Amino acid sequence: MKRPWKDVSVPLRDGMVHWPGDPECRIQRVNRMEDGAVCNLTHITMSAHTGTHMDAPRHFIADGKTMEQMPLEAVIGRCCVFELDSEDQITADDLKKLRIATGQRVLFKTRNSTRSWAMSEFDKDFISIRADAAQYLVDLKVMTVGVDYLSIGGYGKDVVETHQIMLGAGIWVIEGLNLAEIASGYYDMISLPIKLEGADGAPCRVVLR
Amino acid sequence: MKRPWKDVSVPLRDGMVHWPGDPECRIQRVNRMEDGAVCNLTHITMSAHTGTHMDAPRHFIADGKTMEQMPLEAVIGRCCVFELDSEDQITADDLKKLRIATGQRVLFKTRNSTRSWAMSEFDKDFISIRADAAQYLVDLKVMTVGVDYLSIGGYGKDVVETHQIMLGAGIWVIEGLNLAEIASGYYDMISLPIKLEGADGAPCRVVLR
Repeated sequence: MKRPWKDVSVPLRDGMVHWPGDPECRIQRVNRMEDGAVCNLTHITMSAHTGTHMDAPRHFIADGKTMEQMPLEAVIGRCCVFELDSEDQITADDLKKLRIATGQRVLFKTRNSTRSWAMSEFDKDFISIRADAAQYLVDLKVMTVGVDYLSIGGYGKDVVETHQIMLGAGIWVIEGLNLAEIASGYYDMISLPIKLEGADGAPCRVVLR
Repeated sequence: MKRPWKDVSVPLRDGMVHWPGDPECRIQRVNRMEDGAVCNLTHITMSAHTGTHMDAPRHFIADGKTMEQMPLEAVIGRCCVFELDSEDQITADDLKKLRIATGQRVLFKTRNSTRSWAMSEFDKDFISIRADAAQYLVDLKVMTVGVDYLSIGGYGKDVVETHQIMLGAGIWVIEGLNLAEIASGYYDMISLPIKLEGADGAPCRVVLR
């Protein structure tokens, strides 16, 4: 008997936190039964990089693959969750201690899962992946990397470099996970982004078991 | 060795067909590397009922469950795909011939998968579920129902009744599948909608194996 799936996606809410400068997230009912409409109808206006979402290489690579070109193998299969106690950026030295196997799907759990998502404002001090750690993941030929806040690169810290290194190597990136309820170890993972054709990213739903 | 997953979701495109009267689907890049931006950034504006999506009971039931309340069991597990050669609405008599087991996840493949999705305009003559067939599915206590165009109810034909009957019984509904490449039979299904809190529906990605 398999264990039940756990949802590690954050709820998408009207006015929720987003990367500074990105468009606001608006989730609003345009038809309302309480106003006499025959049905309720919700309308969405948001960046493709809102909440739990994926980055396609096209996000930072001019001719990189777009969302609908993602192989399902990148997002359905075994993954390994590593918990890190970093208080600044994740470094290559931090990752070397984890003995990550090559070619894997890996998710990093940090203090972001409990601290950053509990904040009402964007957390500029979230834990991110330093450029040398990004290069280490590329050298390990990891297939997919997931992080527990809105970006693999830090705010004002390697945000461009880390994205260029990882997306340039064709790694599929999941951002905005909440891993608070997940212990380190191996899991079955499903991460399904909506099929935005030609897009640099897409909101996704992610479950682990 | 399991077979590979097949994607049965339709691509989300700027200006794509949608239910008449719903807001337009706009998928546009607001930051463009070819214009000197450091990265590409896609922005989404659409109804929660665009393309391949799910309906929560709240869509037609004032106090019905909303998307984030959906049990993952409704969308991850075995399903049965039934192919129907209906040329008008699917009736209770049509369904009785299929010998559908109780409590299942069921997907209906019709001419919509090849005909309706190939049209550049909304297909008002798509195959839908007549109210008596909706009641038959409720009596069978099916858990989840998937259809291969934008609504379980027809355009000007039982659209309100079919939604009220099925959503009123707590059936989780997947609309907008493309089953052209799928034969009748049993499959593993994963249908993951984005986690729109409080919403009456949400775009989803659906794969079968």
